[in-house]
Amino acid sequence: MTGLDAFTWEFLGTALLLLLGNGACALVTLRTSGARGSDWIVIALGWGMAVFIGASVADPSGGHLNPAVTLLFAVNGSLEWGLVRYYVAGQLLGAMVGAILVWAAFKQLFDANNLDEQGNVTGANAQTGGIFFTAPAHPKNGWNALTEFIGTSVLLMFIAFGPAGGELGPLTYFGVAFVVVAIGLSLGTPTGYAINPVRDLGPRLMYAFVLPIRDKGSANWSYAWVPIVAPLAAAVAVGTLSVVL
Amino acid sequence: MTGLDAFTWEFLGTALLLLLGNGACALVTLRTSGARGSDWIVIALGWGMAVFIGASVADPSGGHLNPAVTLLFAVNGSLEWGLVRYYVAGQLLGAMVGAILVWAAFKQLFDANNLDEQGNVTGANAQTGGIFFTAPAHPKNGWNALTEFIGTSVLLMFIAFGPAGGELGPLTYFGVAFVVVAIGLSLGTPTGYAINPVRDLGPRLMYAFVLPIRDKGSANWSYAWVPIVAPLAAAVAVGTLSVVL
Amino acid sequence: MTGLDAFTWEFLGTALLLLLGNGACALVTLRTSGARGSDWIVIALGWGMAVFIGASVADPSGGHLNPAVTLLFAVNGSLEWGLVRYYVAGQLLGAMVGAILVWAAFKQLFDANNLDEQGNVTGANAQTGGIFFTAPAHPKNGWNALTEFIGTSVLLMFIAFGPAGGELGPLTYFGVAFVVVAIGLSLGTPTGYAINPVRDLGPRLMYAFVLPIRDKGSANWSYAWVPIVAPLAAAVAVGTLSVVL
Amino acid sequence: MTGLDAFTWEFLGTALLLLLGNGACALVTLRTSGARGSDWIVIALGWGMAVFIGASVADPSGGHLNPAVTLLFAVNGSLEWGLVRYYVAGQLLGAMVGAILVWAAFKQLFDANNLDEQGNVTGANAQTGGIFFTAPAHPKNGWNALTEFIGTSVLLMFIAFGPAGGELGPLTYFGVAFVVVAIGLSLGTPTGYAINPVRDLGPRLMYAFVLPIRDKGSANWSYAWVPIVAPLAAAVAVGTLSVVL
Repeated sequence: MTGLDAFTWEFLGTALLLLLGNGACALVTLRTSGARGSDWIVIALGWGMAVFIGASVADPSGGHLNPAVTLLFAVNGSLEWGLVRYYVAGQLLGAMVGAILVWAAFKQLFDANNLDEQGNVTGANAQTGGIFFTAPAHPKNGWNALTEFIGTSVLLMFIAFGPAGGELGPLTYFGVAFVVVAIGLSLGTPTGYAINPVRDLGPRLMYAFVLPIRDKGSANWSYAWVPIVAPLAAAVAVGTLSVVL
Repeated sequence: MTGLDAFTWEFLGTALLLLLGNGACALVTLRTSGARGSDWIVIALGWGMAVFIGASVADPSGGHLNPAVTLLFAVNGSLEWGLVRYYVAGQLLGAMVGAILVWAAFKQLFDANNLDEQGNVTGANAQTGGIFFTAPAHPKNGWNALTEFIGTSVLLMFIAFGPAGGELGPLTYFGVAFVVVAIGLSLGTPTGYAINPVRDLGPRLMYAFVLPIRDKGSANWSYAWVPIVAPLAAAVAVGTLSVVL
Repeated sequence: MTGLDAFTWEFLGTALLLLLGNGACALVTLRTSGARGSDWIVIALGWGMAVFIGASVADPSGGHLNPAVTLLFAVNGSLEWGLVRYYVAGQLLGAMVGAILVWAAFKQLFDANNLDEQGNVTGANAQTGGIFFTAPAHPKNGWNALTEFIGTSVLLMFIAFGPAGGELGPLTYFGVAFVVVAIGLSLGTPTGYAINPVRDLGPRLMYAFVLPIRDKGSANWSYAWVPIVAPLAAAVAVGTLSVVL
Repeated sequence: MTGLDAFTWEFLGTALLLLLGNGACALVTLRTSGARGSDWIVIALGWGMAVFIGASVADPSGGHLNPAVTLLFAVNGSLEWGLVRYYVAGQLLGAMVGAILVWAAFKQLFDANNLDEQGNVTGANAQTGGIFFTAPAHPKNGWNALTEFIGTSVLLMFIAFGPAGGELGPLTYFGVAFVVVAIGLSLGTPTGYAINPVRDLGPRLMYAFVLPIRDKGSANWSYAWVPIVAPLAAAVAVGTLSVVL
């Protein structure tokens, strides 16, 4: 595995992850989407399938898509520390590009979302940030960080201890899809289950500085540290546990 | 693989794909269907499972079911160009026959759909085209083509780069089902996610010229080029990328 | 495979199929069920998972659970004709016992279903037949038989031509579950998708003559031939096709 | 397999099972959860995926997570009786810890659940017991025990007779997930489908004696024997059957 290979495949896989994951959020949210208001199962399955596609395509680099997964493997010795920077760079850039692709795929729906049925401006696009980045249901970020720590630990324990024994082979991609579905169905609503620093930061950057969405809202930077710090802390914890056990 | 084998298996598989996929649309749409108004998950899972069945049955020819998949394999050298015509002919004819089978399976429900509960004619069948072919949420076809290009590229990237490395073996049929579920859950509503020229054109031809649905509506030919051109362009793009990477 | 083995495993598997399949119908129907009125996805997934469990347990006899599957294998030469009677006897008896088990598992809910919240008798149990046997949305049984013929043919084409090439191994049980989910999501509502003679006849017999449900309704015998004859006709058709292709 | 290994892996796996399973219940119940009131499919898939994750992580000890599974294997001779105590101790302690983790992940939502939108105390937390332990729809516990006996028998018959022939390998974890989804979709509502003594007892103990939920309700101890006794009786019955067949 060269650094360039790691960068390339993680970039492609994470772009697909965010395209499909943020896409599910757009699909249930935007006013003129035929699936607006769908059941939570659409969100949970949508993100799980997004991980399946992204990880499958990123198979040559191990399908991490997530700095917490990369850090886990570095901590438990499965990955050279020198490669971490290439993985994370590909993941972050992929997440940013994925967010742009979602915007492009739903461009006309974003335009219409800011209007009512008569074409008057409603300003509803101020709420579109939630399509791209996560937001907690309640404001205490210590508890929110704990929720993200717990959710990420579930993902990483499956990867570290699950049937493939730390190696992400083809069957494991189905398993990883299932674990992301599980976390969404079970721990999804307190914080929006980022469980991945770039899944949150990449689209947040794009929403704040790049995407041309009319009347868009705040990027809520005061929350942005939680879905970065808590998943990485979980990686250190589970990585250490996997060395011990 | 002879041309006749390719034609036969692609015909059977694509007929099953359209029977089941269009069937899911009929099931959630028609007035006297017990599942009318079901959640979007029924559409997304319905089309995904339809691809699973169709591709499994078409295993001897590789389970393409889609000219964009066939073109991808021709572009990246996995398939002889001389066989493409047999694949596409089987796919288009299969899509047409699948649409007839859906109509037959729901025949009494189509009849009742045009009436209210007292048996008065309402003309609601003018809206039944959406059961058979795709329609966009908004009218700008450049953006719609981009959405179809993105969605098809997701499918083709999974096939070209996913765990089976370009070969569609049994496990991959589960994977392809998951990717079609993913696209439906994430990118489904801007354009109805044709992501396959014959999936749209075959039923559109049948609706326009063959199916005896009383008071049926327009076949909306002005949109018909989008789900043909955009998926084929994606096949060229991803096919080229798969040669480069 | 002895006749006794075939009988025993088909009995166990089909009892599980009906217990779980009819259970899903009870779960979404009965007044005091916490999942009353759930989305159609619960029915479609419920029956698919029921087939998965039943076929897995009946693995020693091939997991048919359905006289149409047994007849398919007899027609295409995979099964000795002399064993058919043992398969079908186990299937029918299993379907009857499965219906009794559903009633037992939901006994208190059947009692409460016939009452309103104040405990007055409403007679709502007259509608409980639909929990056990299938009913069409419309009365023309020629068209209904065609729908059942089409749905059963999808199932049988998957079994005859799918990835396992006619042998029902472990992976195929996941596949068969998916195909039953697909048929439910796509062709389920015109006739209630029996696609299996004993799935309909066994519970209908129990409902008519055995189950002690207060104020129960008609067993609708005039429809009972459709889900017997149409699936068997599909078995002959697909069995013949599988010999030819 | 040492006793300590059995204890450790069953502890980890069962903690994950309860974290995710009870999490799904919290997610659809609590007032400020964005997925409140979701369809029953979220509960059924949530518990199924929870079993998949827990059993996968507990792979070194066989992924039992359930004293009824452990007893089944002891009865049919697959497990030494001397190890049963270590399995069950790990399972019960894991279930208790899992319940604490759910409470922690949803802490702010439990606080808000007891208030209305204006912040007035409503006492709604008296109903939060149902997030942690099971409750029947109707009061006759003989019938409720029968329902739990039937549901647990489905699970154990799949494990004893399913494709992996009594050994819980990687593929079987997908299968076991499906069987738990099946039971939830089909037999879930009469009793809340504990089908596992520690799944019910562990969280009930935590709710009664440990969790600091303001204005919490009764732990309903009069029902607590049913989800302990009935699953264990099913283990003896299916274990004996698996020796005979």
